[in-house]
Amino acid sequence: MKIILVGFGFIGRKFVKTIHRKKKRLRNIIGDFKLVGVSDSDGYAYSESGLELQRLASIGGTSEYPKYFHKKGSSIDLIEICGADVMIEATPTDIVDGEPGLTHIKKALTNNIHVITANKGPMVLAFRELTDLAKSRGLDLRYEATVAGAVPVFSLIKECLQGDEIHKISGIFNGTTNYILSKMYSEETSFELALKEAQERGIAERNPTYDVEGIDSACKIVILANALMKRDAKLRDVERTGISRINQNAVSLAKQSGYAIKLIGVIDRTLEVTPKLIPFNHPLCVHGTLNAVNLEMNLAGEITIVGHGAGKETVSAMVNDLVSIAKS
Amino acid sequence: MKIILVGFGFIGRKFVKTIHRKKKRLRNIIGDFKLVGVSDSDGYAYSESGLELQRLASIGGTSEYPKYFHKKGSSIDLIEICGADVMIEATPTDIVDGEPGLTHIKKALTNNIHVITANKGPMVLAFRELTDLAKSRGLDLRYEATVAGAVPVFSLIKECLQGDEIHKISGIFNGTTNYILSKMYSEETSFELALKEAQERGIAERNPTYDVEGIDSACKIVILANALMKRDAKLRDVERTGISRINQNAVSLAKQSGYAIKLIGVIDRTLEVTPKLIPFNHPLCVHGTLNAVNLEMNLAGEITIVGHGAGKETVSAMVNDLVSIAKS
Repeated sequence: MKIILVGFGFIGRKFVKTIHRKKKRLRNIIGDFKLVGVSDSDGYAYSESGLELQRLASIGGTSEYPKYFHKKGSSIDLIEICGADVMIEATPTDIVDGEPGLTHIKKALTNNIHVITANKGPMVLAFRELTDLAKSRGLDLRYEATVAGAVPVFSLIKECLQGDEIHKISGIFNGTTNYILSKMYSEETSFELALKEAQERGIAERNPTYDVEGIDSACKIVILANALMKRDAKLRDVERTGISRINQNAVSLAKQSGYAIKLIGVIDRTLEVTPKLIPFNHPLCVHGTLNAVNLEMNLAGEITIVGHGAGKETVSAMVNDLVSIAKS
Repeated sequence: MKIILVGFGFIGRKFVKTIHRKKKRLRNIIGDFKLVGVSDSDGYAYSESGLELQRLASIGGTSEYPKYFHKKGSSIDLIEICGADVMIEATPTDIVDGEPGLTHIKKALTNNIHVITANKGPMVLAFRELTDLAKSRGLDLRYEATVAGAVPVFSLIKECLQGDEIHKISGIFNGTTNYILSKMYSEETSFELALKEAQERGIAERNPTYDVEGIDSACKIVILANALMKRDAKLRDVERTGISRINQNAVSLAKQSGYAIKLIGVIDRTLEVTPKLIPFNHPLCVHGTLNAVNLEMNLAGEITIVGHGAGKETVSAMVNDLVSIAKS
């Protein structure tokens, strides 16, 4: 199996390190594989016989390794010349036009390359178009990493709850806001202080709007609704309220009554992201940067799955997607 | 696909009702299927063209329906004559000799019938023997319902976390003891009172030893260790302490410090079932009759899955096993 990686940021590099470290184990499961190309916005590296994972894993970015990244072409050029079986799309998310990921994914699919994406943008903006394109060409398009990071919510429903039906999905889909709300809950600090600490710890961005106003959670709701509940939802279909107006008083009052305020995304008849009171003893009431997804199933009743929604653990979802493609 | 059901108690009947109610949906997924035989300790019903699901779903037990159960033969006779593709084993659990389930499963496998079991006994006592027998004959032996009921822990790891490695499994594997401990926690009642209420509500058996002393949890630990962590564990390998000596004082003291006492099964270097202090904000700290399984994975970090560990929801696991067999 020949793989290319498009996007060599935090997640891309973690992916390379992981498939290097787990090489033997992975070969036992998926057979021989080679990473034949890597690209980022500076250019690409390509080797028909496979790039050296060890050297690649040790570098911080493409610019640190000019001998590898000697070609001046773009990711698009790499996709065209690579002859790979699978592309890993790990460029940054853009929810306005989905680029550059959207073009990468279309290009890969039209070149008969299976796609694994960790990039939400294209899946939020063009879910049907991309999944239809993949289907029409008999290709796999997998996106486990786009929602709830390492929590395998798509494969849980598709592989482990077959024959059952989902009535409703609710969840905490954003670790940054959960961190802030957990801090406000446990230390009784203000929103501003909790946000500041999250920023200092690298959990929140300097411009926190995307997380704090629930836009990131809304993106995940859109992908889930389209993938699992046969909707054709767009971002504008999500009723959205963020957490920036939640004050410490409200959190403390809720706490006294046995509730925590959590930013919850819900897929029911409508799509919604809004702060909700969750009983402290409910399985969805998880803290810190954790994500949690609660599924109301017809046969199984409620099932909740909890795990890391972002960070290096997300690579687990990408590796699982890779194994699934190799097996099918 | 021809199916037989061996064991027509609570779970067996729920299974028939479910495949009747979901017939159309299931046929879309697995193709045409027929339930050709049903048996319990009174005898069996058999029809080559398929039993009538509706009539079968409406009866309370085989004895209520003499015209169907006119044959005087045993479950073993049914397995031999049925020519089925899949047997559902749903007789009661016996952890001393595994019977009658153990003989049923062996008989089915040697008659080239795939097996789905909701019965823990045979899997606790003869895991290797049965899985080796299935493998040697190219048959599927599935047992999702035997651990944590509707929580699909085996398929979660095998299908959704492929390529990852498990370091440790901990969990609440018994709903009865969780109900008792939750009651002691929330209402500050004694163990005896909480047990009595559980018995009155049908959550605990009149002889509660099997649950309360951690034997049921130990059974689940053994199956998990053998199935997911390549052990060859027996029930005697589990260090086991139950909850009957936990007094209300201990529960209250723990609560004051932000902990709940839970009966936790752990698969690490050793196998253990013992009451542990779980921080109240930990994902494993779930209440009522819920089960919860915490997986420490190499790539994904900690993942916790929570759901119904017993009752009618368990049928979800059996249906998923059926779909998996049909697909493979």
